[in-house]
Amino acid sequence: MNVAALDGVKALTFDVFGTVVDWRSCIAREGAAFGRAQGIDLDWTAFADAWRGQYQPSMEQVRSGARPWARLDDLQRESLVGLLARHGVTGLPAEAIEQLNTAWHRLDPWPEVVAGLTRLKRRYILGTMSNGNIALMVNMAKHGGLPWDVILGAEIAQAYKPQPECYLRGAEALGLKPGECALVAAHNGDLHAAAKVGFKTVFVPRVTEHGPGQTKDLAVEPGIDLAVRDFQHLADLLEC
Amino acid sequence: MNVAALDGVKALTFDVFGTVVDWRSCIAREGAAFGRAQGIDLDWTAFADAWRGQYQPSMEQVRSGARPWARLDDLQRESLVGLLARHGVTGLPAEAIEQLNTAWHRLDPWPEVVAGLTRLKRRYILGTMSNGNIALMVNMAKHGGLPWDVILGAEIAQAYKPQPECYLRGAEALGLKPGECALVAAHNGDLHAAAKVGFKTVFVPRVTEHGPGQTKDLAVEPGIDLAVRDFQHLADLLEC
Repeated sequence: MNVAALDGVKALTFDVFGTVVDWRSCIAREGAAFGRAQGIDLDWTAFADAWRGQYQPSMEQVRSGARPWARLDDLQRESLVGLLARHGVTGLPAEAIEQLNTAWHRLDPWPEVVAGLTRLKRRYILGTMSNGNIALMVNMAKHGGLPWDVILGAEIAQAYKPQPECYLRGAEALGLKPGECALVAAHNGDLHAAAKVGFKTVFVPRVTEHGPGQTKDLAVEPGIDLAVRDFQHLADLLEC
Repeated sequence: MNVAALDGVKALTFDVFGTVVDWRSCIAREGAAFGRAQGIDLDWTAFADAWRGQYQPSMEQVRSGARPWARLDDLQRESLVGLLARHGVTGLPAEAIEQLNTAWHRLDPWPEVVAGLTRLKRRYILGTMSNGNIALMVNMAKHGGLPWDVILGAEIAQAYKPQPECYLRGAEALGLKPGECALVAAHNGDLHAAAKVGFKTVFVPRVTEHGPGQTKDLAVEPGIDLAVRDFQHLADLLEC
């Protein structure tokens, strides 16, 4: 495992939720503000975890073909409405639901992210490789100052990670071979899927993504090309 | 015609060839260098005009349904090979053709563009609304320092301007209504097509796009929301 594995890489693509931004504490914070405004008393950190818990099942309906293509914003709105109903919260105006659903557009980056990406951008094409839709990615970038060159990922590919098409269509859109692209992610599973289609892979640990009791993705697994401490460390190693 | 027409606009989308970058002199320059390297003696400015002359006819084949979706890079490569053959140039290695074809990825922006976009980016989402494909737009942005937030346009929409889908799918990808988007372009025809689907419109004159003898798009036509001198002027008017 060393940096030479990334020789020839022209584009660094990034998983976003968890890897670039801290969704859990931001959703909990936005939920708490929403709860105060609407007079809803809930454990909003638990709510954030439950909402995120619907993430994979909702995409799986699209991956399996059980439903046609749908953007993540729409999947997450459905999950949100269902979760609120389970807490006895119904009949909210559509604008209130929309305000909370777009909390995902206002997630904050981990502390070193913007400085690291700004350095990496000097030498590499920087793209999102997220299951988030284009509007979500663009609004989040404006909110947090994320200097992406291009929004790739699920909406461009019309396929949700870890489906191979999601990575492959991103590379193809850049006119690059898979081996000229790297995926940077805090999730070993995502990296293994990208490696399988020829992407180079970089693991960055985000050991509090799921809170203090996190048990998975604490360390890199075998088969990943490179592990770094954070984005600044990656910029150091890539001499950006 | 005044700036108040742009109230409520959240995204500025830009035509690129001619509006943002000076394709004619850059293609002529790259062609001349290519000619020297390959020992081909041609009038490369005339060649640039002839190559660009194939632009609309090549896209029209896709628009009409006569051929399936194809990226602009591929259409332009076909036009290039045909044009070279008409000048008696055949049998060039594929890498040489590719080198010249990707001259479109290395076009320089007009002088005030980067400074103007940098100011506009503070308050607006900046997107490409070009018939150029994603790789072309991304490589051009890296070459010229164009600070786009998002690459929209033909490849995202799978439709070539002035087809309404090209504009509409761009707005939809941003989660915006057409009236929350403006098109900035040096071409009245492009602006009229965008206006027809509800976009706000901004004309910027590029009176030497086609060289010193340019006869079209020298001035704004009726029906366009705003005319500006250049991108800096637009940033002034929008108080960026």
